Amino acid sequence: MTEPEGALLVVSAHAGDFVWRAAGAIALAAERGQRAKVLCLTYGERGESARAWREGKSLEQIKAQRREEAENAAAALGAEIEFLDAGDYPLRQTDELVDRIVRVYREVDPTVVLTHPLTDPYNGDHPAAARMALEARVLAQAIGYPAPGEPLGAPPVFFFEPHQPEMCDFKPQVLLDITSVFERKRRAMECLPAQQHMWDYYTDLAKRRGVQLKRNAGPNLGLPHDTRAEAYMRLYPQVTGELS
Amino acid sequence: MTEPEGALLVVSAHAGDFVWRAAGAIALAAERGQRAKVLCLTYGERGESARAWREGKSLEQIKAQRREEAENAAAALGAEIEFLDAGDYPLRQTDELVDRIVRVYREVDPTVVLTHPLTDPYNGDHPAAARMALEARVLAQAIGYPAPGEPLGAPPVFFFEPHQPEMCDFKPQVLLDITSVFERKRRAMECLPAQQHMWDYYTDLAKRRGVQLKRNAGPNLGLPHDTRAEAYMRLYPQVTGELS
Amino acid sequence: MTEPEGALLVVSAHAGDFVWRAAGAIALAAERGQRAKVLCLTYGERGESARAWREGKSLEQIKAQRREEAENAAAALGAEIEFLDAGDYPLRQTDELVDRIVRVYREVDPTVVLTHPLTDPYNGDHPAAARMALEARVLAQAIGYPAPGEPLGAPPVFFFEPHQPEMCDFKPQVLLDITSVFERKRRAMECLPAQQHMWDYYTDLAKRRGVQLKRNAGPNLGLPHDTRAEAYMRLYPQVTGELS
Amino acid sequence: MTEPEGALLVVSAHAGDFVWRAAGAIALAAERGQRAKVLCLTYGERGESARAWREGKSLEQIKAQRREEAENAAAALGAEIEFLDAGDYPLRQTDELVDRIVRVYREVDPTVVLTHPLTDPYNGDHPAAARMALEARVLAQAIGYPAPGEPLGAPPVFFFEPHQPEMCDFKPQVLLDITSVFERKRRAMECLPAQQHMWDYYTDLAKRRGVQLKRNAGPNLGLPHDTRAEAYMRLYPQVTGELS
Amino acid sequence: MTEPEGALLVVSAHAGDFVWRAAGAIALAAERGQRAKVLCLTYGERGESARAWREGKSLEQIKAQRREEAENAAAALGAEIEFLDAGDYPLRQTDELVDRIVRVYREVDPTVVLTHPLTDPYNGDHPAAARMALEARVLAQAIGYPAPGEPLGAPPVFFFEPHQPEMCDFKPQVLLDITSVFERKRRAMECLPAQQHMWDYYTDLAKRRGVQLKRNAGPNLGLPHDTRAEAYMRLYPQVTGELS
Amino acid sequence: MTEPEGALLVVSAHAGDFVWRAAGAIALAAERGQRAKVLCLTYGERGESARAWREGKSLEQIKAQRREEAENAAAALGAEIEFLDAGDYPLRQTDELVDRIVRVYREVDPTVVLTHPLTDPYNGDHPAAARMALEARVLAQAIGYPAPGEPLGAPPVFFFEPHQPEMCDFKPQVLLDITSVFERKRRAMECLPAQQHMWDYYTDLAKRRGVQLKRNAGPNLGLPHDTRAEAYMRLYPQVTGELS
Repeated sequence: MTEPEGALLVVSAHAGDFVWRAAGAIALAAERGQRAKVLCLTYGERGESARAWREGKSLEQIKAQRREEAENAAAALGAEIEFLDAGDYPLRQTDELVDRIVRVYREVDPTVVLTHPLTDPYNGDHPAAARMALEARVLAQAIGYPAPGEPLGAPPVFFFEPHQPEMCDFKPQVLLDITSVFERKRRAMECLPAQQHMWDYYTDLAKRRGVQLKRNAGPNLGLPHDTRAEAYMRLYPQVTGELS
Repeated sequence: MTEPEGALLVVSAHAGDFVWRAAGAIALAAERGQRAKVLCLTYGERGESARAWREGKSLEQIKAQRREEAENAAAALGAEIEFLDAGDYPLRQTDELVDRIVRVYREVDPTVVLTHPLTDPYNGDHPAAARMALEARVLAQAIGYPAPGEPLGAPPVFFFEPHQPEMCDFKPQVLLDITSVFERKRRAMECLPAQQHMWDYYTDLAKRRGVQLKRNAGPNLGLPHDTRAEAYMRLYPQVTGELS
Repeated sequence: MTEPEGALLVVSAHAGDFVWRAAGAIALAAERGQRAKVLCLTYGERGESARAWREGKSLEQIKAQRREEAENAAAALGAEIEFLDAGDYPLRQTDELVDRIVRVYREVDPTVVLTHPLTDPYNGDHPAAARMALEARVLAQAIGYPAPGEPLGAPPVFFFEPHQPEMCDFKPQVLLDITSVFERKRRAMECLPAQQHMWDYYTDLAKRRGVQLKRNAGPNLGLPHDTRAEAYMRLYPQVTGELS
Repeated sequence: MTEPEGALLVVSAHAGDFVWRAAGAIALAAERGQRAKVLCLTYGERGESARAWREGKSLEQIKAQRREEAENAAAALGAEIEFLDAGDYPLRQTDELVDRIVRVYREVDPTVVLTHPLTDPYNGDHPAAARMALEARVLAQAIGYPAPGEPLGAPPVFFFEPHQPEMCDFKPQVLLDITSVFERKRRAMECLPAQQHMWDYYTDLAKRRGVQLKRNAGPNLGLPHDTRAEAYMRLYPQVTGELS
Repeated sequence: MTEPEGALLVVSAHAGDFVWRAAGAIALAAERGQRAKVLCLTYGERGESARAWREGKSLEQIKAQRREEAENAAAALGAEIEFLDAGDYPLRQTDELVDRIVRVYREVDPTVVLTHPLTDPYNGDHPAAARMALEARVLAQAIGYPAPGEPLGAPPVFFFEPHQPEMCDFKPQVLLDITSVFERKRRAMECLPAQQHMWDYYTDLAKRRGVQLKRNAGPNLGLPHDTRAEAYMRLYPQVTGELS
Repeated sequence: MTEPEGALLVVSAHAGDFVWRAAGAIALAAERGQRAKVLCLTYGERGESARAWREGKSLEQIKAQRREEAENAAAALGAEIEFLDAGDYPLRQTDELVDRIVRVYREVDPTVVLTHPLTDPYNGDHPAAARMALEARVLAQAIGYPAPGEPLGAPPVFFFEPHQPEMCDFKPQVLLDITSVFERKRRAMECLPAQQHMWDYYTDLAKRRGVQLKRNAGPNLGLPHDTRAEAYMRLYPQVTGELS
């Protein structure tokens, strides 16, 4: 059997985003033996930790807790994780932060990139992370950009599903079958105890996207009743040798 | 080696459309050993035969000539071809015509469908053909629709590239590598002598889409200098087991 | 207490559509004492009765069964129901059918109209019903249109949520709180035994839209934990005396 | 009679914007007894004071004059007004400015927010103000954001009508009946003597939007001949207990 | 001085549309000495003659009255007018009606075509007329289409401004200076006494579009204070030898 | 013969952009005797000089080489050129840079402005340059903006064609006939030896846009077989005295 090729890079605004929205894709890559790396620009310490703030935790306590939870979730998926601690709510684009992301691209040399969609009226950090992920990808492709490593190729970029898809102009273009790794995704979600209501929410979403996958795949394909899926959008055209 | 699965169905308004815009996809399917069937709703006898009219040919002569050329082109690609002779300029939707297309779907049982985009301000027959192709596909899926054969699955639909893509809201979503069959596409084009200026036009387009394919695939993939491609849009979400 | 004013008219392509997508709005109108009328253009006998066809039922049996189920559901919601039996898959626009809908408008004189969205790549009957509902509404407004009754006012039109919202360009613009009538909606759904898997599907959807309603209403409003909602789009501008 | 609830917050790029575009909504809120607060990010001293510059006034003179006029207009409407003097042409987003807006949100605790649309090819300050108003609203909702006061709820946001609506992708979604307060709006406009040609322009606009309101409300509603209206767009879905 | 070249063809759903929306363009063409022809598909006897119906007029009386008024307006503009009497509310596309329009194209050989926009949620006859005008234009270009005369060139198509532009996706792309012929437009409007309120409405619109024209032309161009304009959209790209 | 009026200003992100995409428009202006000025915000030293980096050139060498090449190309077209050396990959908006562009506007007083489209997923510098060009144009119009010279008029803005038009939402709205100056454009392209493959690419594009121009101009206009064209989009409405 040949060595699995390629690496997956996930650029996430906050510590938990990659779990709810892309854990299936991450686990699939890891199970294929590929390198999977999650880059969290912030811990989500201000904007996505309401319960901890209400419990009176300090900023440092919250960051430490979010970090630990995200590390556990990444481990459950078989992924590496790195935190840039850029500060959330608001997450701001700076040249230094973009440069750090460029260096990650150059080091990981991903064949697939996942990030947030570019529109989210409920959370400005998500589009900010996406804009930086996209800009850094283009910069990393330039031989003239002063960062270590080889110029990047042209890895495809997929936007994962936001919490309120219709409000974010999110239209599923790719339905990824995650049935075989769904239990792993569920375990990763359970590493985030502060957002327990999300466990069922994203389990239900996986079911619905699974129903949609089956409907689009056709009734004759013999997909199991409990098919689970994640939805994605593409930024760039798909390159393929066969229409299917 | 396993038997190639699936069949390709191309629904085309006029006799020549499938050659310029989808010959690569057809030849690839045929070379894989799949069944490839082209369904021409009309011969393009009024709207796309200007030279023949100027030469004073009769309507029946023009239809016979277009039919023969299209049959030659289909043969060069390894595809079957059927003509419904529904009359062009204008091509009109009728229940009877849609029913005939439903029966073709049921008989061919395609796993991939190709047709025109839904917008074309320069040629109303193209969107009309696309609307019928889409409606017939949905009808063929219903067990209650009174036509012979089994209900259709849910084959993906791809729109091939129109002549003036920007004016037809055509944005390439899939770039299909047709390098290995491009000579075959060229030969099919040469079966249509009345539109000789199109041979080079679509050869150039294949080069440009090839350049775009390479740019989106990344410089590291080792694609040949003379990569040739065709561009497509999807109507429905892609169903996949791996992001790539 | 004053007499409740106005009437609700729901124009539905098939016999079951109004239950899954608009039962909450219908039940709310009925509980306010308003007249609520459902107009089913077809029984959905070919396109939405797959199980019955597989069981070998005849066309007339299927139509009778669908009719009875829909009558039961309408009764559970406190609504009238009328069937035009126009034939589905495909549902075709005809002048006669539009004229019949105009007459219903003139007779009911609705203050609110509900129908399908104008786009649905999975089911052409839905947009066809919507186009006729909209055209008939405009015709019914004209004093010169030859039908009995007074010219219609300008009732607002709401599109109810389709089965795959993102694929139908459906973006929730109005979230209707149906918590107080949700049990009634559930009972209406249970009148449609052939589509039992839909009961939970639309119960889950009501929960999700309820979560979204609470998120958009703000955490301070004291909405109950089990808020249930339906989503709608507007075709025309809202007319109001107060922004809220 | 119960105490009127809620407060209205208007975030305006320049000193005069709130008068032309939202004075009706402000006066309606004030007449209902609600708190209405206008937040002017700048005085419009460079970009919207051409006449004063041509008259040779100094920057400080212009700012003082614009301030006084805007204070008079706000008083005529029954509203509070505050100026952040952030500098216009260009108005720039800074973390400090956004933080000041967050603090206003936390203090006012608005139930309705009005601001500019997000697109305006004729004036970049307008979208800049809107982006800050929206970002500050999201930040103010987070318990972890370090500003005094309680986390904000989720007040709906309305975009008021720009000067060239079609060029700003502005489509009226809400038509607000301001007939009862139109004289008040006219008096507020007359507090801005340097832009006298706008008095009639926005009086005409109120008439046209009033005609449109009547057309969308239906001929039977008995609205007066001189109905006046303002047009708005929504950013978030409407939350309601009744479709109307 | 050279002979003015070209002809203007206006395809209008009802008898009055060309006056309110395109009288300026028509008068300009006529003053340049060009042929200007108005083709009214219907008299607007049902949908746009509410007052006459309320006065108890018969269908034939209404059609005669509308015809006479439109003839007077066309004469005031220096244009020919022809009526196809296809029946309005609803205006239906038929092959025969399209064929009649094709023959008008072939006879007039227009260098500019004006018609309605393709979207109008308030009046389905307008888009129906536009679709037929566009289809007939394409058919008239085909040498193979069986109608007398030479194949048409490729005259540009302009959509004139609908009554509620924002609701019809109408964005002004061309602002036509009609100052020199505005009095003529006013006289043509006054030929339509049943819609007297429209005289001022469209006079005001001409002022507003004139203000917008001046704003887009720049303050230095010395345009008069009372500049009057009409707004149009293009369907096809502009062809030019100079950017301006 | 009257003095040619007006000046052309081209705002370009990198040193070569104006050649590939707008050389025809520049040469046409120069041949009419108008002033044509190219403003290059950067040399494209990092992002568009891959070959030079691979050859081991230093940053300063690359900038000098790009400058010289662009100066030669501008000279071949009869245009002035100025470089702001703002640094590319990424090109960042700063108040100082925008101010410098404002001063160029005030000095040149252009009657036509050309720049990049606002969307480009392959190159963030292009939209950044466009945003600055547009903002500076608006600032330069304000008498209150503190820069030397008279306030700008309202010159129309045209976006020139990007490298992958469909991916940049670029739809040709204006097709400019550059046949008479194409040889000059070719010579200008040949001043950029590092991108030799682009010479043929943009020669082919000029042919294709020429074919499109002829198709939209109509077959009767007698345009030569080798018509060459460039495509543009407009940001603002066209102002005209005649539809054509």
